[in-house]
Amino acid sequence: MERKIAIQGIKGSFHHQVAKEYFNESKNLIECMSFDELVKNVLDDDRNLGIMALENSIAGSIIPNYALIDFNKLHIIGEHYLDIRMNLMALPGQTIEDIREVHSHPMALLQCKKFFSRYPHIRLVEDADTAETARRIRDKELSGIGAVASKVASEMYELSVLAENIHTITSNKTRFVIVKAQNSVIPKPDIDKVSLKFELEDMQGSLAGILNVMNEYRLNLTKIQSMPIIEKPWQYSFFIDITFDKYADYENARTTLQQMTKEFKVLGEYKKGVV
Amino acid sequence: MERKIAIQGIKGSFHHQVAKEYFNESKNLIECMSFDELVKNVLDDDRNLGIMALENSIAGSIIPNYALIDFNKLHIIGEHYLDIRMNLMALPGQTIEDIREVHSHPMALLQCKKFFSRYPHIRLVEDADTAETARRIRDKELSGIGAVASKVASEMYELSVLAENIHTITSNKTRFVIVKAQNSVIPKPDIDKVSLKFELEDMQGSLAGILNVMNEYRLNLTKIQSMPIIEKPWQYSFFIDITFDKYADYENARTTLQQMTKEFKVLGEYKKGVV
Repeated sequence: MERKIAIQGIKGSFHHQVAKEYFNESKNLIECMSFDELVKNVLDDDRNLGIMALENSIAGSIIPNYALIDFNKLHIIGEHYLDIRMNLMALPGQTIEDIREVHSHPMALLQCKKFFSRYPHIRLVEDADTAETARRIRDKELSGIGAVASKVASEMYELSVLAENIHTITSNKTRFVIVKAQNSVIPKPDIDKVSLKFELEDMQGSLAGILNVMNEYRLNLTKIQSMPIIEKPWQYSFFIDITFDKYADYENARTTLQQMTKEFKVLGEYKKGVV
Repeated sequence: MERKIAIQGIKGSFHHQVAKEYFNESKNLIECMSFDELVKNVLDDDRNLGIMALENSIAGSIIPNYALIDFNKLHIIGEHYLDIRMNLMALPGQTIEDIREVHSHPMALLQCKKFFSRYPHIRLVEDADTAETARRIRDKELSGIGAVASKVASEMYELSVLAENIHTITSNKTRFVIVKAQNSVIPKPDIDKVSLKFELEDMQGSLAGILNVMNEYRLNLTKIQSMPIIEKPWQYSFFIDITFDKYADYENARTTLQQMTKEFKVLGEYKKGVV
């Protein structure tokens, strides 16, 4: 038994592309039809890895995935930025006028909203995965149905690309993280990024104090997001990412930060990806 | 001609419920099938108001709506928190086993993910609006199709509720904002909340400085979210909400904050809603 990589969606998905780029491999993949299933595969075998989309410059943070990582105590051991390019594809021999319905992942449809507003005759239908729709169009030879997916998917399932790069914003980077059930031993000099979660009683002054400490220890903030805590009115949890040159700086700051916050949690210590 | 209120979706939608609770009226509504259409109606007539969902304790901020407000220079003139309760409904005489497909808004489906994982025979289909699906089931007498919508929608379109409160988290507050093309004149003593957007060159230290100023002027932070700026690598924009007791405190802080940031913009000054 080898370690496996759980991806959201089937081969040809954007998660598959991340597996190729980050691990340089396409075998030993577990195709998962939901992030819940993906997490289950990661929890079932300590050796397994999972790839999860976490944020995106258009839709912001994918909070449900943050919640899955947090709730299931997964460890973020790496990250990868992928330039997402969306393409409209269908069975060969059709034009865009022949397409009545386009199926895709909700995030993909959202990113192509502007393009589809020019084609009011096309109905948009949410689907679990971009590549899976492409495969189904091929398997069932569905005329009149289009998929929004990666170019790899069009090649894999032999579909014609009717329109290339149909997402609204030209550069559309999505941040993916690599997760494990148990922490990997990453050599400290290789660690230059950390994802944290903590709670504060009240934001008045307390968050300023946190940022002052980070600044003092030369930690650079690359992401901050507050979330109201449903069960505790007027309290907030924070998702924060920091980068640094020296692990020792972070280590020293961590002790102080732990004392200043509640429910302090390290979601992962890893090497930052190339944006 | 009277001023109108543009809502996302048709009557029976959660936006309609906000119109009822906030303005205490159900007439003069403009039913919009997208937020783009809603914004167009607000821009077309200065007197018109719009109601837009902006954040949610499960999915986080609805960044595309922030972008619409920002890009179209709308003014936030009020906010309202609604406790969203999701119900599964269908034509009378059917059981949950008879339902093959459930149509609803993607956000509604996301919030009921756990409930539907117990019914793998049900296919989830994205739709523009929760109430519109309920109306279509009634109009076309669609058997085997369910809608996830508000209880008001089930009453309005005479559907049977097959399951009540099917969203995962019991208390599911969504924050809505009231927007206008031109700023309303709200008396300063009534203003106790402000939404800001600004850019920072680099987060190292600069955000800490901002929060220190806010703290000095007794401003309370209730939301902070960083967003990478696609066209400007390593720069960030921030969406920040603050509350305060005295308008003068905010007014004094604003001058300083304007000098410390770039592209400083007041998205709205208004009276805070009851959470």
